[in-house]
Amino acid sequence: MIIGFIGFGKVSKTLFDLIDSPEIDFATSLEGRSAKTIENIESSNIEVLESFEDVAIKSDVLVSATSPKSALSVAKKYGKHSNGIYLDLNNISPKTTLEIDNYVNCLVDGAIIGKIDSNNPVLYLSGEKIDDLKFLNEFLETKKISDNVGDVAILKMLRSVYTKSVSALLIESAEIAQKHDLKEEFFDILALTEGEDFKEKSLSRITNTLNNSKRKSEELEEIIDCFDDSDLIMVKAAFKKLNR
Amino acid sequence: MIIGFIGFGKVSKTLFDLIDSPEIDFATSLEGRSAKTIENIESSNIEVLESFEDVAIKSDVLVSATSPKSALSVAKKYGKHSNGIYLDLNNISPKTTLEIDNYVNCLVDGAIIGKIDSNNPVLYLSGEKIDDLKFLNEFLETKKISDNVGDVAILKMLRSVYTKSVSALLIESAEIAQKHDLKEEFFDILALTEGEDFKEKSLSRITNTLNNSKRKSEELEEIIDCFDDSDLIMVKAAFKKLNR
Repeated sequence: MIIGFIGFGKVSKTLFDLIDSPEIDFATSLEGRSAKTIENIESSNIEVLESFEDVAIKSDVLVSATSPKSALSVAKKYGKHSNGIYLDLNNISPKTTLEIDNYVNCLVDGAIIGKIDSNNPVLYLSGEKIDDLKFLNEFLETKKISDNVGDVAILKMLRSVYTKSVSALLIESAEIAQKHDLKEEFFDILALTEGEDFKEKSLSRITNTLNNSKRKSEELEEIIDCFDDSDLIMVKAAFKKLNR
Repeated sequence: MIIGFIGFGKVSKTLFDLIDSPEIDFATSLEGRSAKTIENIESSNIEVLESFEDVAIKSDVLVSATSPKSALSVAKKYGKHSNGIYLDLNNISPKTTLEIDNYVNCLVDGAIIGKIDSNNPVLYLSGEKIDDLKFLNEFLETKKISDNVGDVAILKMLRSVYTKSVSALLIESAEIAQKHDLKEEFFDILALTEGEDFKEKSLSRITNTLNNSKRKSEELEEIIDCFDDSDLIMVKAAFKKLNR
């Protein structure tokens, strides 16, 4: 079996490192890649082909892990050449996932959840042919969500509904606490019931959100757009909070 | 030393059980108490006086732990008879705490945080004379917040800002997930990063909030009133959510 990678960043490299079997070969290409990715590829023991078209044609499983912005154009370009499974691991919306489905023979949408370079990332999968990826279980935990392409993308967004709104809430709570000179005490008192790591986790959420507020706010906009048939009071408030 | 209790519900009983010293005596009264409280008192080895006025006069530390609604009237009635520390443990707002301060010689405001009947509740204290309560540390963990009466009440409210808004957010997220038939998966995916008990804790928060939505919404109104000089986007959204 051959697993091909379009894009060889953190996600691809992690999979490449985890999947260690004499029966599985890997392929990728240097075509149009960044210096850093080329370095990544050259330091790995992976077959390098002329073009991504060649990679797509040769692969039984073609992994697309480039960037959210190029996911669709990659699918348009190489999807038709892939005769096996096209596993899209880009962080894309349900809408883009369904669009990609039009250009690909056999799409599986996936996401790695948890710290990608931790010991136990979990690979979420949805799509009709997910059973053909059962072999991956030998190398990392996989979770079959459903036969419907797009369900993993929805699930990722649902996850974001919670985490991004919690971050907005933490920003607001910490502001009020600060105003009353009780910020430290605020984190301490919550740690009693929310777990010892509450303070550290919350501060990192706050910093991360404030440092990337433009991107976070765009992602919230995408969430609001995606779930616009639901009653989005908290999410819309989070969006408003981040735009103050 | 004598510790007197006005009210002998869960809070008083817990303190009574924890504080076990030959140098400390306890007193309370049956005056106007409920059948259940009388039973509580009679099954404890505690001195019973004619009236709460007697309890107030005799006590070095007078604990008021009745109900949020009667906290102020109890203070008005018995505060003037207390010459030691008046420790208010009712779940009251900063505003009510400061009002009570007008009727009491030496107020300390306090709150027990964490499961009250667990092995390690923490007693939060603020007020000028908190050092006189240092002896309590021998029996349960105490936390000195500041000299300012009302700071513990503010801290309790800050805690509520977070917990009540998270509950509203969980209700909203679970609704959206349910709509996409991914409710179980939503809790599972978050458990990977939020901790194994995320699902259980969240479901209990949702149920508890929905079953008591009127009270929770009143409490959120009180929070909004208390912090109205802050930018309350998330809290106001939580209030709106609970009133849908």
